[in-house]
Amino acid sequence: MKVAKFGGSSVANAEQLRKVANIIQDDRERKVIVVSAPGKRFSEDTKVTDLLIELGDAYLKNEPYDSKLQKILDRFQEITTELQISDRVIKEIEDGIHSILSSDDSDALKMDALKATGEDSLAKVLSVYLQSLGLKAAYLNPKNAGIFVSDNPGSAQILDESYEHLYKLRNRDDIVVIPGFFGYTLDGKLITFSRGGSDITGSIVAAGVRADLYENFTDVDSVYCVNPNIVENPKEITSLTYKEMRELSYAGFSVFHDEALIPAFKADIPVCIKNTNNPQGMGTIIVAQKAAQPNPVVGIASDTGFVSIYVSKYLMNRELGFGRKLLTILEDEGISFEHTPSGIDDISVIVRESRMPKDKEERVIARIKKELKPDTVHVDRDLALIMVVGEGMDSTVGLADKATHAFAKANVNLEMINQGSSEVSMMFGIKASKVNESVRALYEMFFQ
Amino acid sequence: MKVAKFGGSSVANAEQLRKVANIIQDDRERKVIVVSAPGKRFSEDTKVTDLLIELGDAYLKNEPYDSKLQKILDRFQEITTELQISDRVIKEIEDGIHSILSSDDSDALKMDALKATGEDSLAKVLSVYLQSLGLKAAYLNPKNAGIFVSDNPGSAQILDESYEHLYKLRNRDDIVVIPGFFGYTLDGKLITFSRGGSDITGSIVAAGVRADLYENFTDVDSVYCVNPNIVENPKEITSLTYKEMRELSYAGFSVFHDEALIPAFKADIPVCIKNTNNPQGMGTIIVAQKAAQPNPVVGIASDTGFVSIYVSKYLMNRELGFGRKLLTILEDEGISFEHTPSGIDDISVIVRESRMPKDKEERVIARIKKELKPDTVHVDRDLALIMVVGEGMDSTVGLADKATHAFAKANVNLEMINQGSSEVSMMFGIKASKVNESVRALYEMFFQ
Repeated sequence: MKVAKFGGSSVANAEQLRKVANIIQDDRERKVIVVSAPGKRFSEDTKVTDLLIELGDAYLKNEPYDSKLQKILDRFQEITTELQISDRVIKEIEDGIHSILSSDDSDALKMDALKATGEDSLAKVLSVYLQSLGLKAAYLNPKNAGIFVSDNPGSAQILDESYEHLYKLRNRDDIVVIPGFFGYTLDGKLITFSRGGSDITGSIVAAGVRADLYENFTDVDSVYCVNPNIVENPKEITSLTYKEMRELSYAGFSVFHDEALIPAFKADIPVCIKNTNNPQGMGTIIVAQKAAQPNPVVGIASDTGFVSIYVSKYLMNRELGFGRKLLTILEDEGISFEHTPSGIDDISVIVRESRMPKDKEERVIARIKKELKPDTVHVDRDLALIMVVGEGMDSTVGLADKATHAFAKANVNLEMINQGSSEVSMMFGIKASKVNESVRALYEMFFQ
Repeated sequence: MKVAKFGGSSVANAEQLRKVANIIQDDRERKVIVVSAPGKRFSEDTKVTDLLIELGDAYLKNEPYDSKLQKILDRFQEITTELQISDRVIKEIEDGIHSILSSDDSDALKMDALKATGEDSLAKVLSVYLQSLGLKAAYLNPKNAGIFVSDNPGSAQILDESYEHLYKLRNRDDIVVIPGFFGYTLDGKLITFSRGGSDITGSIVAAGVRADLYENFTDVDSVYCVNPNIVENPKEITSLTYKEMRELSYAGFSVFHDEALIPAFKADIPVCIKNTNNPQGMGTIIVAQKAAQPNPVVGIASDTGFVSIYVSKYLMNRELGFGRKLLTILEDEGISFEHTPSGIDDISVIVRESRMPKDKEERVIARIKKELKPDTVHVDRDLALIMVVGEGMDSTVGLADKATHAFAKANVNLEMINQGSSEVSMMFGIKASKVNESVRALYEMFFQ
């Protein structure tokens, strides 16, 4: 049994939905379908969920929202017309929205229900379309599927009993189409997951039904081993472990929210990334473990926007608690740190610039000076982190050698090397201006 | 004006003291001499200070100590006889010891005064000897030199006003011989520095008189760039910065207590290591800054006896305060950590095995499991750290490349790489069994 989830671009319009239907028909094991709301049809387009949020905002501010509502209805109308299916669902959508807005629920619950309308409506449209093609298919509301969540509007947490309910889907002989992104509290309130939550639904459903495979249909053929904006036509990754994918996601590598995969990960369900526009392609499969590969490196990820707080003090390593006090100062300001390379008399803390705006930075520096009395403290800006990732890293002699050689060839100074905790990655810090040549040099070293 | 300090092996017997006298006569700028107590004359010998400690212990336990006293007196008798100088000083030593033991002072103060007898007596003997050679030389007691310290028996802290007093030594035209290792409180009590304190005295005196050079005479020609027990006849280091020396000392590289140099460091006095047995040799000079060298690497240090506590937890980097809590657990047990390489979902803490005996380790692991609820936690043993040190490290592309290549050539897996905080060193973690081949490979890479 396979669970297939289709992302926003895969369900953006009628043309895409025809491809979706073909994919479902191509494999009889694709019994459970999870869908997002229609995404962008072209780059300047607006996603349906964003249209719904705009509608909700206007409503909350007591501004007129009729034209926004019409835009939403038009999007679905366009689909039903082109797919030549009944447009009865358009009236359902309109009535549903009015009903949400005029209910007694809190504003937070209203917004959640509104946001979920995109997925919910698309699921209905798709099930009608599949039926029109002669398939035994049915729309299944998350409440009836048993997707129960905590009462946290906008960031639902799945309740464990949901998995038992979902398992019963195995008994059905039809194709079920479930809208992603939301669930229900035990007392019947609609609550959405965090943004990108169709991935979360898909993963939960795949874990619940104990699927043989969870297929995540998106708009790229595979996960590439390096950012295709930096290296043209990079090699595709055939298979990744969960660990490798998480390390790569950290440095900006994501095709999807890596956290969304946790339920599938815990249930040991293999996940396959595939392209709706090229469904015959092999895609990239993500598994718990894989056999050792000839190439111990699976991918190179990079991200800019890091800064480093450097603190030095003669005989620092004799002061018990120095490092801990430094981290406490950051924690008090709510700044999570990324890494802390340390020397004997100095320590650096690497932080995402976005987590430390100017006012926080000033307070942090002032506290460091006052409480730790360092010899020097300064902030180095414009850092980028590059991760070289692969399960083979732990036991392969010479990988650090190759990696550092690549940087040397590209004439890039290494500001930081951090290796030894993670068993599947090596991290390098460089000046952000040097990212492209570094990544290209590493690609050449490890993939060519 | 130069300050010359002579260590225990340099003043162990008459033969050594003849060399000391020659060294002093060779350079008229050597005006202030600081001396240790006589050290070992041969490897199974006992240092005079240890004989004094044995005497003190016997006295405190009300055991007979006459034979121990005689051994001490015999050591000095041997010297005065061979140097053909008056043995009047032997009577002074004996009377002095009796006077200390029978005084009203506390046991702690008595022990300090007893321990200091070796340096004090040797200083007297040397000054008499120099006079016998026709030099204008005088013994100078630390009280009269103005070396004032805090009231902490066994770990005196210098009081700042001492420096002003010491500066007046510049006005003298004779050679002064000052015993190292002790000073006086403002109310006249004799207090010793921590063990190895003659280095501290020498450094303080050099800073006080604003010497042009502080010469530390010992029994090696220079500081070598690598441990001569691992690489035969290694290259000698001509010059080191204070920072480089401190990094090298960290990993077991010390010729002396690097902390002892702090006063000289703060006063910007250059320090030169020389060999009493080969005084014409260039030695190694230690300075605040030096010009860029052709070889950016100045030395390689290594030390075994490290362990690594490895903790992993999925989504660790989302838990604000995780790293800080881990460090707090170690701090509560009084365990200072050396380094913390961290990944996204894991962190390692490198600790000296000597700081974490079995019982502490068990408590630490138990607390980590209970308070942090990790996915895994384990201790990796038998680690060694290797430091590649040099002021050129910060701005030289390709050093990490060369270093990692050396390890790869030696077929050594790198457990950890830590670079980026210290601007003058790169640290590598390896299995302790691989230290020798690693150090040799690095030596070959950087020094041949």
